[in-house]
Amino acid sequence: MDQRMKVALVGIGKIALDQHVPAIAASADWRLAATCSRNGSVEHVQAFTDFAALLDARPDIKVVSLCLPPVPRFDYAAMALEAGRHVMLEKPPGATLAEVHALQAMAEAKGLTLFATWHSRMAHAVAPAKAWLAGRAVSRAHITWREDVRKWHPGQDWVFEPGGMGVFDPGINALSILTEILPKPVHLTGAELEFPANRDTPIAARLSFSGNVTADFDWRQEGPQTWDIEVETDGGRLALRMGGNVLEIDGKATAGENTIMGEYPALYARMAELVRQGRSDVDLAPMVHVADALTLGRRIAVDAFEF
Amino acid sequence: MDQRMKVALVGIGKIALDQHVPAIAASADWRLAATCSRNGSVEHVQAFTDFAALLDARPDIKVVSLCLPPVPRFDYAAMALEAGRHVMLEKPPGATLAEVHALQAMAEAKGLTLFATWHSRMAHAVAPAKAWLAGRAVSRAHITWREDVRKWHPGQDWVFEPGGMGVFDPGINALSILTEILPKPVHLTGAELEFPANRDTPIAARLSFSGNVTADFDWRQEGPQTWDIEVETDGGRLALRMGGNVLEIDGKATAGENTIMGEYPALYARMAELVRQGRSDVDLAPMVHVADALTLGRRIAVDAFEF
Repeated sequence: MDQRMKVALVGIGKIALDQHVPAIAASADWRLAATCSRNGSVEHVQAFTDFAALLDARPDIKVVSLCLPPVPRFDYAAMALEAGRHVMLEKPPGATLAEVHALQAMAEAKGLTLFATWHSRMAHAVAPAKAWLAGRAVSRAHITWREDVRKWHPGQDWVFEPGGMGVFDPGINALSILTEILPKPVHLTGAELEFPANRDTPIAARLSFSGNVTADFDWRQEGPQTWDIEVETDGGRLALRMGGNVLEIDGKATAGENTIMGEYPALYARMAELVRQGRSDVDLAPMVHVADALTLGRRIAVDAFEF
Repeated sequence: MDQRMKVALVGIGKIALDQHVPAIAASADWRLAATCSRNGSVEHVQAFTDFAALLDARPDIKVVSLCLPPVPRFDYAAMALEAGRHVMLEKPPGATLAEVHALQAMAEAKGLTLFATWHSRMAHAVAPAKAWLAGRAVSRAHITWREDVRKWHPGQDWVFEPGGMGVFDPGINALSILTEILPKPVHLTGAELEFPANRDTPIAARLSFSGNVTADFDWRQEGPQTWDIEVETDGGRLALRMGGNVLEIDGKATAGENTIMGEYPALYARMAELVRQGRSDVDLAPMVHVADALTLGRRIAVDAFEF
C-alpha cells in the first residue's frame, strides 16, 4: 500500500515546476495529489482553479504547499488552516509579519502544522557552517549577494511592487542563512536603500548590523553572479559560496556541492517530519531584518529600471 | 522608612520633564534617585552625563527608565540589563524589532523585568472601550490621527530621520490603542505613504487592515487636532476621542477625562507591579504594524517639508 502522504500544490509557476514538483516526485514521503492554479497544471495530477473547490472535493489531502507570491498567499493559508489542513509556505512566509503571526495563532489553535520554509537554509554547506561556527567568536561577517534580476525574474514586474520586496527577495535568502549559522543573533543598525525612480521597492541595499556584520545586496549584477557569506572568527575564516552550497575554511573548499537541487527535497523531508511530530516551524528572523531595513533605511533615488 | 523604589531616568528632554518627572514625583511606589543626560537635569536629583558612571556609582538603583529617542536607546538598555537593572522603555521600544527581541532575550536570561510601555494604552477610556468591545463583532473601524508636527515637535528634525518614524511617531499611539481594544488581531493589507521630497520618513499615511479596519495619519493638520478611533459593531457604535481619553457609545460620551495626565502615572504603577511580580511586558504588535506598513506601503512623493 502507498504510505506516502498526499499534498496539494498551489500556484503552479516557475518555482513550483523547477523545484517543488521534482522534489515531491523524488520523495518517499509525498505524493502530489492535486494542484490549484489560474493557469498552470502538472500532467496526470488533478487540477483545480478554485481553491475552495479543491478543499471541498479532496478531504483526503491533509497537506497544502503554497508557492504563489507573498501578497495573495495569506488568504489561501487561512482557508487551508480553517479547513483543517497542514500548511507549508514558500519564502517569505507572507507580505507582512502580522499576517504570519495570525497564521501561527490559527495553526496553534487547531493543532495543525505550519512550516515557514527558507530553502537556502537547506543548502548543502549551511549545517556544516553552523557546526563550525558554534563556540567560535565572530569578529566580522559580510554578505555579498549580487545577481541579475533580468536573468532570474525576466519581466516579472511584481517583484518591484509593494510586497514583492525588490532586492530583498534574493537578499532574504542570505539573511535566512546568516540567522541560521551565527552563534549569536544580530540586529540592524542602519541601511541605505536604492530605489529606482519608477519602482516601489529597492534594487540595491547596504545593511549594517550589530557585531560588525554587513551586507551588500544588488540586483543589477551582470556577468558572474555572487552569493557569498564570509565570516572571520577567533578560530579562522569561513566562507559560504554559491548561496550556501559550498563551504570554505581558511580559503580551502571543504564541503558542499555546487547545486541547489538538494534544498527543496530537504524542505519536504522536514515537512513530513513536522507533520508526523505534530509540530510547527515558523522563524521570522529573516523577515524581521527586512522589515527593520525598510523601517530604518535611508532612501536613495537611482535611475529608473526597466526589464 | 521610605519604602519607595529608586529609579534612574535617562534622557532628560521634553517628554521626561513633561510626563516622567511629575509621574514619579506623584507616585507612592517610586523615588527619582538619579538622572543621566547630556544637557538636562532635575533639581535636587544626582545628575550624571555618563551612563556607565551612573550604573557603577549607584548599585542601589535597581530600575532604569529610558526616555531618550529610539535610535540610541538600545545601547543604554543593553548596558542596564547587563548591569542587572530592570528596564522601562519609552515608546517605540526600539529602532528595530530585532533589537527589542535581543533585549527580551537578555532580560529573560537574567531574570529581569523589561517593560515596553505604550502610554496611550493607559488613557482613561481605553480599558472601558476594550471591555465594551469584548464579545461584540466588529464590522468596521477607522482611525483618524491628524496633528501638527510643527506644534508638537518644533524644529525636531530627528523625527524625520530614519528611525524617527515620521508620522508613525504619533500614529503608533493610535495603533497601540487599536491592538489593545480589538477583540481579534488584524493585519495590514495595504498602505500609501507620503514622503516629503527632502525627508526619509513619511509625513502622512493611509493604512488598510484586514477586517475592514483603516487608518488616516497626517502630520500637517493645522487648527483643531484629531485623535479619534471609531468602531462599528453588531451591538452599536463606539468612539474613542482625545487619544483614548474620552469614550462615546452611540454618540454619547460615557467615560473618561479630557486630559492625558493619567497615562504616565499608570505606566509607573504598572512597572512597580511588574518588578514586584518578576515579570516582563513586551508587546510589539504596534511596532509590527508600522514595520509592515513601511515594508508593504506604496510611496508617494509630496512637497518638501521645512519646520
